[in-house]
Order: sequence, then C-alpha cells, then structure tokens
Amino acid sequence: MADLGRPLDKPIVERLTLIGLGLIGSSVARAARRMNAASKIIAADADPNVLRRVGELKIADEIAPSLAASVRDSDLVILCAPVGANAAIAGEIAAHLKESAIVTDVGSVKSAVIAALQPRLPAHVRLVPAHPVAGTEYSGPDSGFATLFRRRWCILTPPEDTDADAIACVKALWESFGSQVEVMSAQHHDLVLAMTSHVPHLIAYNIVGTAADLEEVTSAEVIKFSAGGFRDFTRIAASDPTMWRDVFLNNKDAVLEVLGRFTEDLAALQRMIRWGEGDKLFELFTRTRAIRRGIIEQGQETAAPDFGRQATENGGG
Amino acid sequence: MADLGRPLDKPIVERLTLIGLGLIGSSVARAARRMNAASKIIAADADPNVLRRVGELKIADEIAPSLAASVRDSDLVILCAPVGANAAIAGEIAAHLKESAIVTDVGSVKSAVIAALQPRLPAHVRLVPAHPVAGTEYSGPDSGFATLFRRRWCILTPPEDTDADAIACVKALWESFGSQVEVMSAQHHDLVLAMTSHVPHLIAYNIVGTAADLEEVTSAEVIKFSAGGFRDFTRIAASDPTMWRDVFLNNKDAVLEVLGRFTEDLAALQRMIRWGEGDKLFELFTRTRAIRRGIIEQGQETAAPDFGRQATENGGG
Repeated sequence: MADLGRPLDKPIVERLTLIGLGLIGSSVARAARRMNAASKIIAADADPNVLRRVGELKIADEIAPSLAASVRDSDLVILCAPVGANAAIAGEIAAHLKESAIVTDVGSVKSAVIAALQPRLPAHVRLVPAHPVAGTEYSGPDSGFATLFRRRWCILTPPEDTDADAIACVKALWESFGSQVEVMSAQHHDLVLAMTSHVPHLIAYNIVGTAADLEEVTSAEVIKFSAGGFRDFTRIAASDPTMWRDVFLNNKDAVLEVLGRFTEDLAALQRMIRWGEGDKLFELFTRTRAIRRGIIEQGQETAAPDFGRQATENGGG
Repeated sequence: MADLGRPLDKPIVERLTLIGLGLIGSSVARAARRMNAASKIIAADADPNVLRRVGELKIADEIAPSLAASVRDSDLVILCAPVGANAAIAGEIAAHLKESAIVTDVGSVKSAVIAALQPRLPAHVRLVPAHPVAGTEYSGPDSGFATLFRRRWCILTPPEDTDADAIACVKALWESFGSQVEVMSAQHHDLVLAMTSHVPHLIAYNIVGTAADLEEVTSAEVIKFSAGGFRDFTRIAASDPTMWRDVFLNNKDAVLEVLGRFTEDLAALQRMIRWGEGDKLFELFTRTRAIRRGIIEQGQETAAPDFGRQATENGGG
C-alpha cells in the first residue's frame, strides 16, 4: 500500500512500548510497523481481553506480562490509555524506565497530563507530551488502522526545558505516520482543543441527550428523521465514554470558558429568532460557510456532499 | 442505473410544474424524469440565471416564461423555493391554476407554509404540504441528483379535509423517488423537525460562529485542528443561508421550545463538569451511543468510521 509512502530505511527507535491498545494505540502499532518506525513493538494494557485481541491481530511483537515489564529497556514509551489513567500508569512504570527513556502520550488534554506525569517520572526520563488530532467514533484494538494519522496534525507540548533530541524523536515518529507536527504550550493547546474538539463533543452529547429525553417526540421519530441534520451529531456522540469523561474532568477551565462563549452566542441567536431579525441570521449563516471552505482547502475535510455518504449509501446520483 | 429501480410504466401526472430549481427542486426534476413520474416537467424560477442553467442541464422539458405561465394546465405544482417566498408565489399563481390542480411543497416547516398558502389558493385547488427529509450542504441546480430522496422519509401534513386522491398522488410521487412516506399533523411535524433538523442546524451555525470570533484561537488554528470534532459541525453550517433564515423565522415557537430544552440540559452538563461529576458524565456519554446505533440500523446513516471519509481521503487503512 503506497498510501503512507515508503517505510523508513532505519527504525527511529529500537524498542517502542505502547500502553493502551485502543483506537489510537492500536493505530500507532499498525502505523509504526508499516513504516518500520521501531525494531520491536511491545504492547501493554490493563485489560487482558484487549491484550488477547492484540495477540490475535498480531499488531505487536511482544505482549508484556505487566506494565513494569513493558517499559524495561524501552527507548520510547507512548501512553495511549484514557488520560485519567496516566497518573497510576506513571506510578507503575516509573522505577522500571531505562536511563534517558522518552515518555510521550496521545492525550487530548495536555496541562493535566503534564501535571500527572512530571512529578511521578524520574528526572532522567525525557517527557514529550503529544496529541495526534485524529480519531473515529469507534473504540478498541479492532478499530485502529495505519493511516489514521495521515494528513492530520499532531501537537507537541514539551515543557520549557525539554531535551531537543527527545522532541526530534517524537516529531520524526509522527511524521513517519504522515502527520504534520506543531509545537505549542500545553495551556494554549488546551484552549484550542476545547474549541475544536472538546466543546463540539460536549454539544453533540448534549443534543443527543435532549432528543432522547423529549416526551413529545419519540426516539423512533428522532431516528427516522435524523437525516435532516441530527445524525451528523450522533457520530461524535458515539465516541468512547471513558475517554471523554476524562477529557472534561481534566480540561475543566478551558472547556468552561469556551462553553461560556458558546452559550452567550446562542442566547444572542435565540433573541434574533424571537424578534424575527432575519438580516442578522442571514449574516451569521453566510459567514460560517467560509470556515468550511478553509477546512476543505487545507485537506482536513472532504468536499463531497454529505461527507460523501450519499455515494456509498445511495449508489451515487 | 438500477439504484432507483425500474421507471414507472405510466406517469403519475401529465404536467408537473417545479417552482424553484435549487438543490431540492432540481433533484425532483432529475428523479421525476428518471422514474417517468410525469409526462412533462415544467421549470420556473424567480432567478433567470437558475433557469438558464436548468436549460443547459436539460433537466426540465419546458422553461416557463413566468410563474403564472408555468402552472397553466399543470396537474401537480411543487413549490421548491425557500419557505419565505411561498406567500408571494401563491399570489402570483393562484388565478392561473387549473381546476382541481394539486399544489404541494418541499418546505422544512409546515404550519407556517399552510398559513401562507391556504388563504391565497382558490378553493378548488388541493393542497398537500410535504417535506422530504433529505439534503446536502450544497445549493443550486448543479448540486441536485436523482437519488437524493432514496431511503429517506417524506412527511406529508395534509389539513384535515384534504382530498384522499390528492394525498395518494403526492405519496406515489415520493415513493417513486425511493422515499418512505409518513403522514402527521403540521404542528407535530414542526416540533419533530425542530429537534431533528432545525436546532441541530442552529447549534452548528452557532459553534462555527463562536470559533470564528474567539480572540485567543486563530481561524488558522480552528481549521488545522478541526478533525478533533469541529469539522463535523461545519457541514450543516455551510447550508443555504436564505433557506435557513426562513426556517427559523417560520418555525419560531417549536425552535425556541426545543432550544430551551437543549440549553437547560447543557447547563446541567456544565455543572457536572464544574463539580467533577464523572459518573454522571459517563452515564450520559454511554446513553447517547444507542441512538446512533438505531439510526444506522434504520438505514439513515452509514456505519463506516468517520462517515466513511477516511476511505476516500486517506486511501483506507
């Protein structure tokens, strides 16, 4: 498959440990193997069923008997569990990390992850927090795929004094998966992602909840007539509940700030409707088209109508 | 193309007039021709550029010189303009409709449409309001396609005393396009659609507006990192501004009611985050998955991850 380009001539690291083999972790395993990013991929997961499945899928070279064992002699350790689990994981692996090992993660929040990891890891370890902005609504090791990160951004939020070689190593890894890498502060990351990911998920979960609870409209009606727009929200509202609970608990300040803006803007919109201010509605509805154009132009979205669903579902037009 | 089944042996009507040849009207024209639903399709539109394009696309048999001329001798007239234009259109065509002509529409609101049309149409005309729950984010005669309505629902909201033959005629038309037809009251329709379509659009427009206005996060950042969830909202926020302005102005009560529920639920969710109530968040995030499963099972949505976008954009996994 040529879709990720030619594999690397020389692996970036010898031993790569993945802790947590869900959608993201298992996609990293697949991408790393396809791109020859590591000589050996070691998998660890708190859930024995996940590990069994990873063995069946043959997406790792070694299944570690414990978290502690998984990091021994490892050059690069990637934490891919829900962010709420990071503190406990750091506690379990800290004493077993080799000198100068690089520890990174894939969490959707960064300030809280740094706060959880930094005090628990030994001083010799090099921490490079990372967040690949990619995913689907599916969870678990079966749902991953090697091209998940292709043409997506990966954000690194290294603390001020982070070793440059460690940053370069993590950057090279994500670039080998087809991602573009951007570096910013953890605090800025958390605000940007609150806007582009966390609050959108919150709103999607919320509107699906509202629809489920409405007495006058049955669930059967919501489902039948969902093609009017509602179904678009149900995709991200089907995302992994544990992951998202942890995101909201760990990025509280930025989420509440962006949510405050959203609510304020919504109140203004509600008022426009109540007072029949058609011109103002029209102005907003026109302005919002430009952002989608930008997203399509930057390759972050398909230009196909209806996300291209018509083509597959309806046999084209 | 077998995707719509075999064309009808005998047309449902002789002369079919379409007023407004945007996404929906031009899709009706294409579907009606492909399915042999009418012997002759007559197109009318207030915009001469649209009519010229309809001529170039050859999707109608006749281009009418005026609205009045378009309905002469017509058996079935479908109003496909934004709903705010219906009153004026009814005024222009009323005197020219033939005895017992059927007038229907495709508007996303129904009570207001009935209120606009009923007093303006002559008593001999049979009004059967309809709403095909289908669409894409694109507008105009080039964006339509014959299979748009396939496997989608079309809701009819005939007033109490509507002639049964007229209802059967409109039902047969939509069924020939591959739609399933449901009949309900205009009032109930407006509440159901406020939930499944209007408020979702409002929220999508609103969050895209919030993102555009946030000072601390640049538009470039919003665009880059939109794959975290935000981009899903931009699709419906790119829908036709005139159509949607009219929807909100004409379904004010139901939209404000559903929006009130949404806002109330969102306030509760905000409070859960502020107080760190992880269990309640988890409970909601789990519950919302069931609705998407239902939508997929009922054939209203694709089960492909990420709406199937990955397959086309990224070459599969």
